[in-house]
Amino acid sequence: MPGQPTHVDWSLVSERTLVSQLQSREDGTVSVSGWVETVRDQKKVQFVILRDETGAVQLVNPATRPDPDGAEQDAAALALTALISELSTGTFLTVTGELKHDERVKLGGVEIKIATLEIAAAALPETPIAADSGLDKRMDWRFIDLRQRRNNLVFRIQTTLEHAMRTYWVERDYVEIHSPKLMSTPAEGNAELFALEYFGDQTAYLAQSPQHFKQMAQAAGFGKVFEIGDVFRADPSFTSRHATEFTSIDAEISWIDSYEDVAAMQEELLAAAFQAVKDKHGDEIAELFDIDVVVPTLPFPRIPLAEAREIVKARGYDIPRTDGDLDPEGERQISAHVRETYGHQFVFITDYHPEIRPFYHMRNPETGLTNSYDLLFQGTEITTGAQREHRIEVLEAQALEKGLSLEGLEHYLDFFRYGIPPHGGFGMGLARVLMLMLGQDSIREVTFLFRGPTRLAP
Amino acid sequence: MPGQPTHVDWSLVSERTLVSQLQSREDGTVSVSGWVETVRDQKKVQFVILRDETGAVQLVNPATRPDPDGAEQDAAALALTALISELSTGTFLTVTGELKHDERVKLGGVEIKIATLEIAAAALPETPIAADSGLDKRMDWRFIDLRQRRNNLVFRIQTTLEHAMRTYWVERDYVEIHSPKLMSTPAEGNAELFALEYFGDQTAYLAQSPQHFKQMAQAAGFGKVFEIGDVFRADPSFTSRHATEFTSIDAEISWIDSYEDVAAMQEELLAAAFQAVKDKHGDEIAELFDIDVVVPTLPFPRIPLAEAREIVKARGYDIPRTDGDLDPEGERQISAHVRETYGHQFVFITDYHPEIRPFYHMRNPETGLTNSYDLLFQGTEITTGAQREHRIEVLEAQALEKGLSLEGLEHYLDFFRYGIPPHGGFGMGLARVLMLMLGQDSIREVTFLFRGPTRLAP
Repeated sequence: MPGQPTHVDWSLVSERTLVSQLQSREDGTVSVSGWVETVRDQKKVQFVILRDETGAVQLVNPATRPDPDGAEQDAAALALTALISELSTGTFLTVTGELKHDERVKLGGVEIKIATLEIAAAALPETPIAADSGLDKRMDWRFIDLRQRRNNLVFRIQTTLEHAMRTYWVERDYVEIHSPKLMSTPAEGNAELFALEYFGDQTAYLAQSPQHFKQMAQAAGFGKVFEIGDVFRADPSFTSRHATEFTSIDAEISWIDSYEDVAAMQEELLAAAFQAVKDKHGDEIAELFDIDVVVPTLPFPRIPLAEAREIVKARGYDIPRTDGDLDPEGERQISAHVRETYGHQFVFITDYHPEIRPFYHMRNPETGLTNSYDLLFQGTEITTGAQREHRIEVLEAQALEKGLSLEGLEHYLDFFRYGIPPHGGFGMGLARVLMLMLGQDSIREVTFLFRGPTRLAP
Repeated sequence: MPGQPTHVDWSLVSERTLVSQLQSREDGTVSVSGWVETVRDQKKVQFVILRDETGAVQLVNPATRPDPDGAEQDAAALALTALISELSTGTFLTVTGELKHDERVKLGGVEIKIATLEIAAAALPETPIAADSGLDKRMDWRFIDLRQRRNNLVFRIQTTLEHAMRTYWVERDYVEIHSPKLMSTPAEGNAELFALEYFGDQTAYLAQSPQHFKQMAQAAGFGKVFEIGDVFRADPSFTSRHATEFTSIDAEISWIDSYEDVAAMQEELLAAAFQAVKDKHGDEIAELFDIDVVVPTLPFPRIPLAEAREIVKARGYDIPRTDGDLDPEGERQISAHVRETYGHQFVFITDYHPEIRPFYHMRNPETGLTNSYDLLFQGTEITTGAQREHRIEVLEAQALEKGLSLEGLEHYLDFFRYGIPPHGGFGMGLARVLMLMLGQDSIREVTFLFRGPTRLAP
């Protein structure tokens, strides 16, 4: 009947208690919902460990087994016992029962005596993976793998980390942008690009980074921008640090004097984010990952690349790369040096040669080196940052020098023809930060659903 | 030299004053940076309106023109005057000069007398667009178009809106996910899908929504999740409400009793976000868009679809669609009814027939209708929300009924075979919310860089 459209049936709203709330609840009737982690089906008593997104609790049921002599028995009690005996791991259910605080119960000091048990969705009896299954197998069944406490914690840490970074930026009047991932021209050259047919006669490319567009925001006078979003690399490599799709954390700021303004922002940002993670999850990270999250001190150490190579060489490692860059072992060596010398997990490596940098990095006229840096965290690169070249004639010359076609860069170069401030920024891989923070071997462990050359599902 | 890597040259850090800070600064030397909005080059005095990301200020220079009689003159003053005469709109520059408070100056009551003027990047003299250029032309030159105060404000509102939503969720222990955009199988059927070649022999599809994956997070026991990210629709339509790539705001929650739990969360979320926007930008929105942002009261009105159609018919509009859904005019009519009857800008339309809903919407066994809703805001749909069918046998039957192949849904259906809680969620188009909040005619006006069938650049 018209006339009552604002009616809400509040009786439909759940009265579920989260497992984390049980300890502070008084003894009495509660209702909990989660999934079956284990069942101990003993002759006289049954125990179920139920886990939800906040923790695990022990459910108990005094078993009522069919009387071998056929004596009359409570049908409901028999049915409940049989139901529990048949529960498979992973089954999602709701239990109502009597909460009792009991310090003898190791798991949280509480227990629930089951009164009613309602199955929401029963799991097939054979779980296809276990906690110790191989990584590839676990990724096939990622939604089961993610039920592990450690894996669940990863994404709560991710949530805290990102929110702390966005809060840092929002409090400083940065503008959040969502740049398009479909582009008419490649952003950073032609390598590692996914191409697709776009309405018949056009070719679109998937963005490898928001580089073009965060620079466009500078020409637009946005001042300071950030974006946390997906980028795509048709990168056939199978290392533990590479993915074909990943979440990139990007910022770009106007009116900088050098890349130092960018580096100073990034180190503050990371310190704030690590502090938030330590405050909220430090104890759990220590328990589940055996890691003490270290909030980095400011400023982070800075070492010019040429000097870093000398230090690495003096440590006995001769970098085979001939282009002047560090290789992964060189990154580990210089990070070990920084850890030993300055007690720091981070280091900015600065002053890269233009040959190993994109055309749009600004160069220092005195040294001929770029105004750019890489940020290493615990031995692995997580970021490239730079002051950008904003002078159109210099930018064009640098593009030509790299063998790029100016026609292919037409839209990008337009951004510099109608006025643009000096600017710079960085891009940082979210999964790399999480991997290194949690001492993991692979970004696959800290990615919700990894995508690689042979991994497009589930 | 090694040994001083932590050295930061703080003299490199800018001492720029933002225009918004000038009013509270004492008279004296200041440095401002921004772009030239207008130049008034009068014979005896020159005025430049300089805009930065926080506002606009008047710069003034007493003109020194070449003496026709060749009298000796201050060369620096002559050069500065000539430089200002040649300034083109959009040129980015830094001016140092004497700040003076003067209530006769309409623009903020302050003025800066130019001492030095340094051009960062000169704009070409002919700006290709004006504020009143056509939409398509403005989109060709979006980075210039975005310099307009109104357009800049849109993205500061976007920032506030999103941050308020994320904060609402984070405070309630939601987990932020980044679901993959590259998929091996279509998420919602085969229509409107972008396909691409993935490492030679595979085909990848671009996600049309995070639907599969936010449901996967429920099977993973994440409880409550959100994602704000890009989705892709190979949709050839040219309406003001459609794009081929857009930012989708998604949430999904476990252990719901009905779609009411989802709707109740969404209305609270929107009220919190609108409140944040009104608090931070209400005055500017009133000034630049002539709109009073209304924070919606709770609960939003709810009207079953069949009833909504009756109301629309009674208002004199006979919906031509024969599938039982509303059409755009029907949406406007029911929203007008709600505005007139309840004074509300939002309305949940509920109880859609399964024929016009995806197979995964749960159905009410009594009515045969789906446990789902659309949310209309000011006459336009911004959201579809629903309780999902989590019972695998029902889900498969509903998929088959829609003519879908179970093989194509294999990975998705797996999520339901190893336990999953009852759950539901919604997806909401960011640009639609902004468009309607700001009374704009097209999502193109509130999208950083719009993508459509004929729009893939810049």
